[in-house]
Amino acid sequence: MTAIRADCEALDAADALALFRERFDLPSGVIYLDGNSLGALPKATALRLSEVVQQEWGRGLIRSWNTSGWIEAPQRLGAKLAGLIGAKPSEVVVADSTSVNLFKLVAGAASLRPERRIILTEPGNFPTDLYILQGLKALLGERIELRMVSAEELPAAITEEVATVVLTHVHYKSSLRWPMATITRLAHDAGALMLWDLSHSAGALAVDLNSCGADLAIGCGYKYLNGGPGAPSFLFVAERHQAAIQSPLTGWMGHAKPFAFDDAYAPAPDIRAQLCGTPAILAMAALEVGVDLMMEVDMAAVETKGLALGDLFIRLLEARCPTLSLASPREAAARGSHVSFTHTDGYPIMQALIERGVIGDFRAPDILRFGFTPLYTRFVDVWDAVEVLREVLESGAYREKRHSRVAAVT
Amino acid sequence: MTAIRADCEALDAADALALFRERFDLPSGVIYLDGNSLGALPKATALRLSEVVQQEWGRGLIRSWNTSGWIEAPQRLGAKLAGLIGAKPSEVVVADSTSVNLFKLVAGAASLRPERRIILTEPGNFPTDLYILQGLKALLGERIELRMVSAEELPAAITEEVATVVLTHVHYKSSLRWPMATITRLAHDAGALMLWDLSHSAGALAVDLNSCGADLAIGCGYKYLNGGPGAPSFLFVAERHQAAIQSPLTGWMGHAKPFAFDDAYAPAPDIRAQLCGTPAILAMAALEVGVDLMMEVDMAAVETKGLALGDLFIRLLEARCPTLSLASPREAAARGSHVSFTHTDGYPIMQALIERGVIGDFRAPDILRFGFTPLYTRFVDVWDAVEVLREVLESGAYREKRHSRVAAVT
Repeated sequence: MTAIRADCEALDAADALALFRERFDLPSGVIYLDGNSLGALPKATALRLSEVVQQEWGRGLIRSWNTSGWIEAPQRLGAKLAGLIGAKPSEVVVADSTSVNLFKLVAGAASLRPERRIILTEPGNFPTDLYILQGLKALLGERIELRMVSAEELPAAITEEVATVVLTHVHYKSSLRWPMATITRLAHDAGALMLWDLSHSAGALAVDLNSCGADLAIGCGYKYLNGGPGAPSFLFVAERHQAAIQSPLTGWMGHAKPFAFDDAYAPAPDIRAQLCGTPAILAMAALEVGVDLMMEVDMAAVETKGLALGDLFIRLLEARCPTLSLASPREAAARGSHVSFTHTDGYPIMQALIERGVIGDFRAPDILRFGFTPLYTRFVDVWDAVEVLREVLESGAYREKRHSRVAAVT
Repeated sequence: MTAIRADCEALDAADALALFRERFDLPSGVIYLDGNSLGALPKATALRLSEVVQQEWGRGLIRSWNTSGWIEAPQRLGAKLAGLIGAKPSEVVVADSTSVNLFKLVAGAASLRPERRIILTEPGNFPTDLYILQGLKALLGERIELRMVSAEELPAAITEEVATVVLTHVHYKSSLRWPMATITRLAHDAGALMLWDLSHSAGALAVDLNSCGADLAIGCGYKYLNGGPGAPSFLFVAERHQAAIQSPLTGWMGHAKPFAFDDAYAPAPDIRAQLCGTPAILAMAALEVGVDLMMEVDMAAVETKGLALGDLFIRLLEARCPTLSLASPREAAARGSHVSFTHTDGYPIMQALIERGVIGDFRAPDILRFGFTPLYTRFVDVWDAVEVLREVLESGAYREKRHSRVAAVT
């Protein structure tokens, strides 16, 4: 049992990832436990962006599409990112937003299973995932049916009517982690396709899409990949599906020969067919710095440390803040890299915490969410954060914060 | 007739927009005539991006979604941009790519005209526009029909079967400008909707969407708006359509209450319903600098100067480079802010020009394209560019450049 702060200091001293904290530009006086919502700023990002802006754009102008590798950025970043999620370099591209990429792949999955109508997901999945599925349903009408089944009953609902199962690997609120290999196998046993949203796992867990046999995946660049606010998203299409899957968003970057300027669309024969518009070079440059940084570390070590930070947080918090209730799996293997607790005064408590420099976030109706990002969160940060929380709860300081809520992006 | 360089110098001396050139960071030794493909770098962009990265992201972290106005960026930029294209502030948002925005609005237009099937456009329209329409057709099958009719025959093809007419206001190759008011009226007379792609006109011409009665529009942020490579795009939905039009890309940012995290999608009652994923803040910050700069000038003055530069270019070039043939309208009122010429050796000629610091671009099979961006192009630049072109042609220096082609983004 870690009982005193010095024990946390010892854990930090023994931590092989501890040195990576120096690679981030973190504000002083802040314990940042919200990297699962917006990752922190890598120190290298500002300089790299300044180079891209002043040299590549300013000096190179249009020539930089070729001379600075802009045109290959979606595939180059995808190939790098592939190594973090157990994919081949040729199976991932970076483009558009997570929402747009989900639309591409779910519509694409329908093209791979034309004889089946059902898209299966769980209620309470991240809203944009549910909304995108609803938008596709509204567009395609009777051709698809959207079925939402609770997590407990979902495995049994993967029947031979199901075209595609769409799940978020790690739940944005509860942090519950779906067993990727098991669920993917159930989907395949039923002849369905499996699409994973990796928004809360890429860069945090040792995801291994291909060893699980996943068909399709999407994920977020601005959380654990530290790509910056609203960073581009990534998508994965297993090699075996690339020739047949049809993206509905057939922009020119997905054309086999985009610079032939033909009138007729002809998809690229590979993952490029999932590209759509002109790549967002400035945003991609920032994301590339985050991905490059993540490529220096072993994802298994990142996962282990993230879960250990979460374990420590649960243990310390339950011992010192008994009015909070754990809303995440206690077992680390069933969790992602964030931990949630509930309290009826969750909103004012989080506001009081943030005022004191401990930044987590609140999710309605009563969830306090804390993310553990192994590259820049220390064990002593966990200790100190719990101490601040204990003080807020014991002093009742949060009670004056029970005012109207302000929105914040997940 | 301008016959000597001093006459061009006099035009620059009298030019009220001349001072704006100082606001751009232009490479020395270059005459940049490709701002219609990628706009030049405003001097203010590097500092602004550095602030957003280091202060807003680095120091503010997740809090900046509220404290730095990130969450309102799509509407804030849209409202600013609206003034440049004759729209109301509540009719424009900035989000996603031009391709993705076209998909949203064409699918949305289908929801406004459910009893009609035909989407009408012209062959040779910018490829991504045609490809997006083809992708929507592949997705929706018999529900829509894509009809491509040549520019000459297009007005007569706007019949009462047509749901939506989709045209690019200024053609990316020929620079031919559609008469926006006339064509929009023809569409309305037939009960059809009119969607304008403003990629080659926003920031160059005095577009007035509402006085023309346009229904829908999209456009590009990285050309005349100087938003940077792959900058986000904008879209316009006339107020009268906002309640009824259904976006197919129903991401969480389009929800009436995105932070309620409800399972059921409910569109925002206004232009926000056209948003999809999390806004790309870094890319938007760069675009905002470009838009802010453009807001300082009168678009009518910009249009007048751009067309005058084009007129001068045509006049000088035809007098000195008789082997090139004009491929754009001679009449300024029928043109956008770029001018194209053809030559069977167009590709090597452009390569030789670029090597000599005159940057235009080449479009297959034989088009040399030159863009005139009034904020940073001088009349003497036109003179000097023509002189370099004359020299390349007379010396035959381009003949050694007849090698394989390298792609470049439009």
